[in-house]
Amino acid sequence: MDTATPPKPAYAELTRLQLQIYRFRHFASMGWWDRAAMMPPKGNEARAAAQAELEAHIHRLTTDARQEDLIAAADGEALDEIERANLREIRREWRLATALPESLVQAQLIAGARCEHAWRTQRKANDWKGFLPNLREVMRLAREEAQLLAEAAGVSRYEAMLDRYEPGMTTAVLDRVFGDLRSWLPGLVAKVKEKQARERVVEPTGPFPVAKQREVSLAVVKLLGFDFEGGRLDESAHPFNGGVPEDIRMTTRYNEAGCIDSLMSTIHETGHARYEQNLPRDWLGQPIGRARSSAIHESMSLAFEMQLARGRAFVGLLAPMLARAYGEQPAFEPGNLHRLFTRVKAQNLIRVKADECTYPLHVILRYEIERPLVEGEIECEDIPALWDEKMKALLGLDTRGNYENGCMQDVHWSEGLIGYFPTYTLGAMYAAQWFAAIRRATPDLDRRVAAGDPGAAFDWIRANVWSQGRRWETPEFARRASGEPLNPAHFRAHLEARYLDAPA
Amino acid sequence: MDTATPPKPAYAELTRLQLQIYRFRHFASMGWWDRAAMMPPKGNEARAAAQAELEAHIHRLTTDARQEDLIAAADGEALDEIERANLREIRREWRLATALPESLVQAQLIAGARCEHAWRTQRKANDWKGFLPNLREVMRLAREEAQLLAEAAGVSRYEAMLDRYEPGMTTAVLDRVFGDLRSWLPGLVAKVKEKQARERVVEPTGPFPVAKQREVSLAVVKLLGFDFEGGRLDESAHPFNGGVPEDIRMTTRYNEAGCIDSLMSTIHETGHARYEQNLPRDWLGQPIGRARSSAIHESMSLAFEMQLARGRAFVGLLAPMLARAYGEQPAFEPGNLHRLFTRVKAQNLIRVKADECTYPLHVILRYEIERPLVEGEIECEDIPALWDEKMKALLGLDTRGNYENGCMQDVHWSEGLIGYFPTYTLGAMYAAQWFAAIRRATPDLDRRVAAGDPGAAFDWIRANVWSQGRRWETPEFARRASGEPLNPAHFRAHLEARYLDAPA
Repeated sequence: MDTATPPKPAYAELTRLQLQIYRFRHFASMGWWDRAAMMPPKGNEARAAAQAELEAHIHRLTTDARQEDLIAAADGEALDEIERANLREIRREWRLATALPESLVQAQLIAGARCEHAWRTQRKANDWKGFLPNLREVMRLAREEAQLLAEAAGVSRYEAMLDRYEPGMTTAVLDRVFGDLRSWLPGLVAKVKEKQARERVVEPTGPFPVAKQREVSLAVVKLLGFDFEGGRLDESAHPFNGGVPEDIRMTTRYNEAGCIDSLMSTIHETGHARYEQNLPRDWLGQPIGRARSSAIHESMSLAFEMQLARGRAFVGLLAPMLARAYGEQPAFEPGNLHRLFTRVKAQNLIRVKADECTYPLHVILRYEIERPLVEGEIECEDIPALWDEKMKALLGLDTRGNYENGCMQDVHWSEGLIGYFPTYTLGAMYAAQWFAAIRRATPDLDRRVAAGDPGAAFDWIRANVWSQGRRWETPEFARRASGEPLNPAHFRAHLEARYLDAPA
Repeated sequence: MDTATPPKPAYAELTRLQLQIYRFRHFASMGWWDRAAMMPPKGNEARAAAQAELEAHIHRLTTDARQEDLIAAADGEALDEIERANLREIRREWRLATALPESLVQAQLIAGARCEHAWRTQRKANDWKGFLPNLREVMRLAREEAQLLAEAAGVSRYEAMLDRYEPGMTTAVLDRVFGDLRSWLPGLVAKVKEKQARERVVEPTGPFPVAKQREVSLAVVKLLGFDFEGGRLDESAHPFNGGVPEDIRMTTRYNEAGCIDSLMSTIHETGHARYEQNLPRDWLGQPIGRARSSAIHESMSLAFEMQLARGRAFVGLLAPMLARAYGEQPAFEPGNLHRLFTRVKAQNLIRVKADECTYPLHVILRYEIERPLVEGEIECEDIPALWDEKMKALLGLDTRGNYENGCMQDVHWSEGLIGYFPTYTLGAMYAAQWFAAIRRATPDLDRRVAAGDPGAAFDWIRANVWSQGRRWETPEFARRASGEPLNPAHFRAHLEARYLDAPA
């Protein structure tokens, strides 16, 4: 028997601990999926109690104090490049897990749960006054959190919050790329509205039975390459991606009133799902084996939904599938279907219902409010007036007195979730950047997609995104994938081509 | 804030630990259900690894050495009757969890897995010679296990094995009740065969589409009172009851070749399911809140399947449901359906396919072999000859040279599972005893069931079985429920009434 000390004992012990945490998270993740997709109502209390016990155990493991010394020791071991990248991510996980005192985390959970719970009814009642005191408390704690994280990381408060979802992202970059968007996007939206006002678009007519929608969804998800040997598609109130990379549990929802929205939502989730399903197998269980960041994850869902599925070539594939399922009708003529898929809903106050063109403006608005809010430059009381002003400036819409569909529409702030919104639009920009690179590598991409084979896109994504895990920090990752770090010009070119020029 | 020591600190700490174990077992149980009913094939490896990590953690908790002192200390605390009963069960769990050295448990897992894995192909190849060496190793370890358990409990080796499934059951009782059965059952089977040979029975004709079978199953399970707000019915290769009492996951399987077997299997599982679903809510998470024993669990599935569902009154309810699902036909005439449900398949070599009358003879045969085997009075080599001899004597069947459908048919021994077989027939006897008590309490039971209301049976079972958990040890439990401890006369009366007399 070999009793020699392993050559990298501290690193080996760290990876063993990570793998153990990964095994327990398996059940946490499956438990959440089951709760949303399978669990009968009376199972809720027992599940909640079991989840709490499991999360407490995972917390004990992730904050295991031995890690501090092990990380320091591993740093001095002869690690190869991959191991060093993994150690970087382990250190980051450890820093985040231990940055906040338990008392603050508990206080945030309680305040967030209270605020979110009340928000559900307050929003419907347009009750900003009732919401405000709860939000103030959530924000007070979020600022405390941001302050502690900022001190530990040596960055600004907002950057510290942002960093949890988008490691290394700075407000300097955000200001640059969002500033760029702000300079041309409202003008583009106005032009698109004008152009689309002259177009005739036919809506599909039902019925759209759930059983048919399920069939179409399964066929499209299969066409998009999801591996059903390593995952499932089920239904839940809110579509999401659950499970583990080895066994992805994606969900969607069907609404008999229409056949488009749910299909697009399924395609969106398929983008997330294939990322997880194709993460590097050799690194599974280690932080280096996880998805790069929230924005990169969103870039996958938007690559599938916005770049691929709403493009003319793919619309040409969907058209006959929809006609077979719901009957031939003018709405499913490919040109009309493409117009349906790319319609700009300019009167829309609601972010989650926004289209590809206006969505970033909703995000910029939130960024411009949540950033000074967490920095302490404005107070919660200031939100409605700022919201109204920015909604007018960015989208030309009036939200005065309309809290329900204005500043109370999102759940994020009520739960103290600050710094997440930008990742949606960063994801849209990365998605455009990936597809620009894919088109450079495969100039006849549209012809191939139109012929039923989107494989070239997936091959590029597999090589450059899925397989990379967290091997590189994000700017280097983007450079290796596409030749440059984040560049919003691709998103602009994409929108201009699709919405102002003709075929794209 | 009250900082006084709680009045029963050791007992309180023990119950806290039990609850923690219960929370983790929640995921273990849901994980198994998901694996059987939901999981795609590529999820298997990750699930197995996660289950192993979780089971290791549960093992650490169940063998937590603090319990020994806590149990001793709790014994001296001022516990009420319920708490004392729970402490009795906690002590039992602790004794079982710590009775065996880890090295033996591991050796058994490895030998059992090897033997069972090889058995799958050896059985089909009728390869007793290939099976024997593996079985010998499994049996060597089982004897070691039995010896250690026997020393700790002061009982015989076989009783020690039996005790894990049927606490307190002795070979003296088994010899008495099985001896009783042996004296009259073969004669009864002969008479039934003679009687049934003169009866005409019509088989249902298909098709039996899975979707229809699913509908019938759901309707019957609902009629049997299963609470779908607190559980689900899904499909798996082998029907079983999974989940947790708060959220029961029962499964069944459908075979398009017939519509009866799967329905009966579903009804059987519903009996198990309702027991778990109606365990006392106040004690959930504590050992006292669990099902009394394997035999009592089996008495619930057999109460539903054999006592209730194969009785004429319930058959009268099923007949129109089957006719609606698969079309009117002579097979679904209630009298014919009842004959189908009560047919004695006397030529059947296989236990799991046996009917109500012959099943106990299959069990007695196994008891008469596994008992001397684990006691060291016979060796594995002796099994085939004993099997042939007993099969001839008990069932009049010839199994010489037919290992596949003879002594190699069950998985139990290959996994070292000794002492479980008797619980099937103890369950059948308890089920008959419960229904005798139910009929005494509700003389017009059949009339009520025939009118579509089996509620009186469920009310009795709820009050006397489900709600009792492990409040009483089994003989006292049986006495309180039915006025006497286990009495095989009820099973005899039931079989004679159903199979030899007329209406029952």
